[in-house]
Amino acid sequence: MSLFEGIEGALIDLDGTVFQGKELIEGTAEAISAIQKSGRKVVYLSNRGNHSRNAGLTKLREHGIDVEKEDIIFSSTVTAQFIKKHYPLAKVWILGNKGLADEMVEHHVTLSTRPEDADFVVITLHDEINYAELNDAFRATSAGARIIATNSDKTYPDENGPAIDVAGFIGAIESATGQKTELVIGKPSCFMVEAALEQIGLRASQCMVIGDSLGTDISMGRMQGMRTVLVLTGNTTQTMAEQAAPRSKPDYVFQSLADVRGEL
Amino acid sequence: MSLFEGIEGALIDLDGTVFQGKELIEGTAEAISAIQKSGRKVVYLSNRGNHSRNAGLTKLREHGIDVEKEDIIFSSTVTAQFIKKHYPLAKVWILGNKGLADEMVEHHVTLSTRPEDADFVVITLHDEINYAELNDAFRATSAGARIIATNSDKTYPDENGPAIDVAGFIGAIESATGQKTELVIGKPSCFMVEAALEQIGLRASQCMVIGDSLGTDISMGRMQGMRTVLVLTGNTTQTMAEQAAPRSKPDYVFQSLADVRGEL
Repeated sequence: MSLFEGIEGALIDLDGTVFQGKELIEGTAEAISAIQKSGRKVVYLSNRGNHSRNAGLTKLREHGIDVEKEDIIFSSTVTAQFIKKHYPLAKVWILGNKGLADEMVEHHVTLSTRPEDADFVVITLHDEINYAELNDAFRATSAGARIIATNSDKTYPDENGPAIDVAGFIGAIESATGQKTELVIGKPSCFMVEAALEQIGLRASQCMVIGDSLGTDISMGRMQGMRTVLVLTGNTTQTMAEQAAPRSKPDYVFQSLADVRGEL
Repeated sequence: MSLFEGIEGALIDLDGTVFQGKELIEGTAEAISAIQKSGRKVVYLSNRGNHSRNAGLTKLREHGIDVEKEDIIFSSTVTAQFIKKHYPLAKVWILGNKGLADEMVEHHVTLSTRPEDADFVVITLHDEINYAELNDAFRATSAGARIIATNSDKTYPDENGPAIDVAGFIGAIESATGQKTELVIGKPSCFMVEAALEQIGLRASQCMVIGDSLGTDISMGRMQGMRTVLVLTGNTTQTMAEQAAPRSKPDYVFQSLADVRGEL
């Protein structure tokens, strides 16, 4: 069976798959364009919880990728949609970069004006954090707010190696308050894949997921019955892919998303 | 406004509200019957994750309560329904009393035959646990299974005072594996209230919730815009109710569910 046989859509990860940091990985824009020109739909599915879709849209378009905002699905997006749908009366306090608050506002989620009044603290990466912000999230949680996390990635790669990610912020608040997170939205959860499938308008069996992470992208795809494609431009090596447990073993491994183009 | 004005259905908690341990609280069966005879619908919404609905049905009927199985909604029920709906391909390992496994089987969730093959470990109370069972859940999680909890109650009252509940089992597995729970199903979550509203066929604003717990029953009701009734037959005192934060302050407080009958 050829890679794209029977496939009508692709769920493509961003960090480590299309981008390394701020840089586009060579050839990926052309590969995405080729997938689109073959008549297949593309959505971008990323655990980024600290960016808004508007920021993602700007970045993708700056790099020559033809995309509409609705095709960009961050964990910030899905978290905001989840809260608006299931807790329409909730007031939310954010621990994270401004992108998450922007996404909440765009989805008409009510932000609490005081930590003590919040029903939920939503935690994501905050790479410009200061002590007062950390303490406000502590105060909200201590006063009874429940904890939701956009995702629970432990690290992300930066120029000095692994850097502390959302799990560190979750740990700070949980340890200091004794409260625990009740919901993690990011990949490999059903919340992310269902948001992607709704946007792309296809069933899981008609889709492939392309990403750099065994524990999020590949295990999500396998769990839902999608074709899975691992790329080695991110945090996974060929050896790790070969040693993966069945639940996170990719169907295909490519050096780069750029190489997928040759399969069309 | 009288207690039941505009109310067409009641979501009634069980432990501490209808029952104290195995004993029916005096007058509660008659109060439930009176609510039903007034033309209002009743469903039972309990964080019990270690019992099956069949067990709940037997217990309620033995105490003279007129109920159908579908009107009993445990966190075990909602967890099984959630997994079947959102992760239909998943294999599940159970850490908990047999009632949870029974509920999974009834909902056609696939149970893993080996810990290492499980996609999820579902944790609930297990009051007959032995070391091998604890270790099997550890092995499943260590091998990559993700953690879902039926609920995260810390204690429940028994004849010697507070007894360790689901949170203790969650803590055991999290601490030993370094993995974290990604989803807690029980009250006050949207998953429980949405299951109850679907069964009762009403909107939140048409319903009241009657329960003994500020943090689960009352805060769930307030969050969803329901009328809230606290009863003092369980783990909450009048003083605690008066000092509750707005998000978990009940609209009404009664000594017992039995007293609600006088409001009809």
